[in-house]
Amino acid sequence: MAYLTGFHAIEERIKANPVDCVLLVANAGPRAREIAALAAECGVRVLRTGTSDLDRVSSDHRGLALEINDDKQSPTFTSFLESLGDKKDILAVMLDEITDPHNFGAILRSCDQFNANIVITRDRRNAKHAGIIAKTSAGASAWVPSVCVPNLPRAVEQLKEASFWIHGADMKGGPVYKSDLRGRVCVILGGEGAGLSRLLREKCDSLIAIPSLGRIDSLNVSVAAGIILYEVIRQREKKPAQL
Amino acid sequence: MAYLTGFHAIEERIKANPVDCVLLVANAGPRAREIAALAAECGVRVLRTGTSDLDRVSSDHRGLALEINDDKQSPTFTSFLESLGDKKDILAVMLDEITDPHNFGAILRSCDQFNANIVITRDRRNAKHAGIIAKTSAGASAWVPSVCVPNLPRAVEQLKEASFWIHGADMKGGPVYKSDLRGRVCVILGGEGAGLSRLLREKCDSLIAIPSLGRIDSLNVSVAAGIILYEVIRQREKKPAQL
Repeated sequence: MAYLTGFHAIEERIKANPVDCVLLVANAGPRAREIAALAAECGVRVLRTGTSDLDRVSSDHRGLALEINDDKQSPTFTSFLESLGDKKDILAVMLDEITDPHNFGAILRSCDQFNANIVITRDRRNAKHAGIIAKTSAGASAWVPSVCVPNLPRAVEQLKEASFWIHGADMKGGPVYKSDLRGRVCVILGGEGAGLSRLLREKCDSLIAIPSLGRIDSLNVSVAAGIILYEVIRQREKKPAQL
Repeated sequence: MAYLTGFHAIEERIKANPVDCVLLVANAGPRAREIAALAAECGVRVLRTGTSDLDRVSSDHRGLALEINDDKQSPTFTSFLESLGDKKDILAVMLDEITDPHNFGAILRSCDQFNANIVITRDRRNAKHAGIIAKTSAGASAWVPSVCVPNLPRAVEQLKEASFWIHGADMKGGPVYKSDLRGRVCVILGGEGAGLSRLLREKCDSLIAIPSLGRIDSLNVSVAAGIILYEVIRQREKKPAQL
């Protein structure tokens, strides 16, 4: 069970996927009424509740929360692989130990913007931060397809079998704009500080880096993710001779 | 007067600019001793103090704070313009109403990575958040040159007189990778939500957008900044025919 707060995030979740959720309302403001009307329209159950009940599920609700029971509706990694058919341009994003929910949410927002087909993580550690993630992702966590797998290196093997080229983000890699990021690609991003785990780095087909002219030589991981995903889209939109 | 906390941020400030600051130490751990030794070596005054004194200047110090009195040492916009000489590739970044200190800090970190020559803002509103900004910028706020000007549209005029091409980030603009971002460029970024102010937008030579394939159609402003600054560097590093 997870709870979304944040008016925008709630709205987006209801529009994207009005199942397995209940809207809890302890607020009679115009924005809350608007969202309650939307919920009713979309077939979402609306429950009037007390502020103290909401306090128990979130410390920063503004009189509204969306209770979500989404254990059953996530895609699985296997169903993702099976759904590929002969599609050519596929962008998979694998997150290795990105535990900060703000970074995780910001990355999901970029995954929406650049149309990532799937986000692959290792465990459900982030599930308890669903509210923060929904907010920092501006609601994108409601619809960006994401799966958890027990073993990331094993998932990399399966992606390779499905003709994915595996690019690991690593400061020691070549400039990202010199790598060919078209076709079926999986981009792996490691946590701030530690970076990619050794096992995953060894499984990469190439290591890609963002050029650095600065003194710190490391970007915030969500900014780095945004730049790499942007580069994928830039390359897809250019004619081959212009890469 | 501003206070930096965060071991990394303090270290970077001392290394970059060991003047007009005093290190306050209420901690005897190995990392604190290391930083105190660095400070002494760089000629920074080190003062032993009580934890309660530090509590008064910051809620999240870890027994260390760097007191900074930097009113006199910032460059001015005029001295920046005068220093340009006949340099060809210059990157100026103008921030219009980016008030969130986390976003501001993350943008400074990207400005370091992509070697922005100057960051221009309107007022010193962010000064009171120097600690948060130093942390989220991973210390870059200590050395990325930044100036405050009373009137941004007037500064744009002065940049134009100095042969800058003014690019405003705006969702209605053309794809950023189709704009020529070489030479003397100024990139203007507006706040999340409101975007560029009308007056500034009208002064832009071109509007640039990051392609969006998503449902939200807006990136976090620090991610957007990172992508645009990356694109400037990518274009500079490519041969003209490959743009």
